[in-house]
Amino acid sequence: MTAVGDVDDGRATRQGRPGRPGRPGRPGYDRESLLRVAVTVFNERGYDGTSMDELSKRLGISKSAIYHHVTGKDELLQLAVDRALDGLFAAADEAAAVDGRAIDRLEHLVRASVAVLVERLPFVTLLLRVRGNTAVEKRALARRREFDRMVSGLVAEAGAEGDIRPDIDPAIVARLLFGLVNSLSEWYRPRGGSGGAEIADAVCAMAFDGLRRPPPRTAPAGRPVPATGA
Amino acid sequence: MTAVGDVDDGRATRQGRPGRPGRPGRPGYDRESLLRVAVTVFNERGYDGTSMDELSKRLGISKSAIYHHVTGKDELLQLAVDRALDGLFAAADEAAAVDGRAIDRLEHLVRASVAVLVERLPFVTLLLRVRGNTAVEKRALARRREFDRMVSGLVAEAGAEGDIRPDIDPAIVARLLFGLVNSLSEWYRPRGGSGGAEIADAVCAMAFDGLRRPPPRTAPAGRPVPATGA
Repeated sequence: MTAVGDVDDGRATRQGRPGRPGRPGRPGYDRESLLRVAVTVFNERGYDGTSMDELSKRLGISKSAIYHHVTGKDELLQLAVDRALDGLFAAADEAAAVDGRAIDRLEHLVRASVAVLVERLPFVTLLLRVRGNTAVEKRALARRREFDRMVSGLVAEAGAEGDIRPDIDPAIVARLLFGLVNSLSEWYRPRGGSGGAEIADAVCAMAFDGLRRPPPRTAPAGRPVPATGA
Repeated sequence: MTAVGDVDDGRATRQGRPGRPGRPGRPGYDRESLLRVAVTVFNERGYDGTSMDELSKRLGISKSAIYHHVTGKDELLQLAVDRALDGLFAAADEAAAVDGRAIDRLEHLVRASVAVLVERLPFVTLLLRVRGNTAVEKRALARRREFDRMVSGLVAEAGAEGDIRPDIDPAIVARLLFGLVNSLSEWYRPRGGSGGAEIADAVCAMAFDGLRRPPPRTAPAGRPVPATGA
């Protein structure tokens, strides 16, 4: 899976100019660092609630300096939600290539999606708040729905292969799985770059095998088997 | 657990007057119906983004007619988040009274919390978006943290009793459980009053026992045991 910083499309230095060196007292941004600050502000104040004036104030540069990098707020949103969605679709492609049973592809997808969420947290957070007021938002929602349909298809396939407990509606399974993954955006905060794998393991352990300590397969000789559950 | 409509505190008809009968062409609100519309608007536009003018427009009544029922936006928010929090704390009290093992109290709490979320969806949705800018919001966040501490305590207790798989950090377990429950606010929409119990069953089945079809305890004679997982 591509790490966040790898997605630079080469347009960070528009018009062929190298990134402006920061002048004293004025922060120098390239397109990537400008995008990151903008996404932070959007997540704090809401995309609709953030004006170009506000962005300019927070960035400490003029509006025309922002327009040097992007055509406007809309393009910043587009870049941000694509960063999230491209990661999720890459995770889906990766999962689709896994041999074997659908439930294993599903687990792979959940694990890879957690990694995307952890690596691209502010971008996914912004994506999850998109409500569809503008053309950019509508396209983002359409891509989210496409992703959701793919997850639902994989759940249905795993169900048809007999690997998912039959007492839960597959449509609900898909919602719960990605509700769980997406809920990380509400509380997960990276601590020094690690922790993503631990979270992905915890999500998959709970979702696929449950929190209850599994009963031991064979009781060690001479020791009583501890009761699990009630 | 108290149903949503039962929480009327008797102040709906302020100043001892009975609810105003609707005049022709002017909707008549009592405090409860006014609260419900206000919460819908807050959830659509954000609490900060909703002015009293906007509320007055959406309700189709003057601002002074709103002030007949409440002291302002702040009181509407207070009533709304208390509706959600009172439900969650009632669920916690109910769970605390369950005899037996901590994991059973935890499962009871998760199930009852899903019921609160389903019954009081707009109120819980608003609560989950509170960010702490005003005194009312800060109090709501403090009560949420108190609830979270109670959940974490119950998870730790269940872990100490040996009923939670030891490979997941208890702090993460509590986050994942309530991330899962709260994620319902993103997609669950009641269909004709039913569905809450089915969702609660699905959440508990996945969270406590996992999605994977459990292997049969004893294989029927003469039939191969189907493989689960890979």
